Amino acid sequence: MIRHAAIFRLKHAKGSPGEQSFLSALKGLRKIPGVENFEIARETSPKNDFDYAVSMTFADQDAYHGYNVHPDHVAFVESRWIPEVVAFMEHDTEVMAV
Amino acid sequence: MIRHAAIFRLKHAKGSPGEQSFLSALKGLRKIPGVENFEIARETSPKNDFDYAVSMTFADQDAYHGYNVHPDHVAFVESRWIPEVVAFMEHDTEVMAV
Repeated sequence: MIRHAAIFRLKHAKGSPGEQSFLSALKGLRKIPGVENFEIARETSPKNDFDYAVSMTFADQDAYHGYNVHPDHVAFVESRWIPEVVAFMEHDTEVMAV
Repeated sequence: MIRHAAIFRLKHAKGSPGEQSFLSALKGLRKIPGVENFEIARETSPKNDFDYAVSMTFADQDAYHGYNVHPDHVAFVESRWIPEVVAFMEHDTEVMAV
């Protein structure tokens, strides 16, 4: 299982209509086939410069690839992520030990 | 619920005894009261410079605080984390939408 996450900061003010619109559109990605355990979270640590995190899991690399190239994902990245996200870091992990 | 995570890189080579010793000691933190959903994961994305992630959840800020000040956590940070971790980023999140 792969967990894909992105930590990010928006150009919109917190609580603004722009923030709400972006997060609502982001939430739509959960409908793409292969996406599991979808979560949007608010960053609460003062130890980094990001404000939100989105994370999801995929059963395997094929499922992850299918998400990456899905037209809804590609359209979201082009029309919302690139113009509205001012900074982000992606990280993808596979559990080693629990 | 708060998810506390740290993404990090070790001074040890992957697969080395030093790596195994560190990860084994890290795993011991799961025994501290209040720690839930403990996971150690391997970073698989080429899009950042970290190699591992550790994450856990706490029911609330009091549980998180109890972990931070627990002698086992303080001792781990001083004796293993500071000398063996060469770079890290912490992030703490609360789920907004799923």
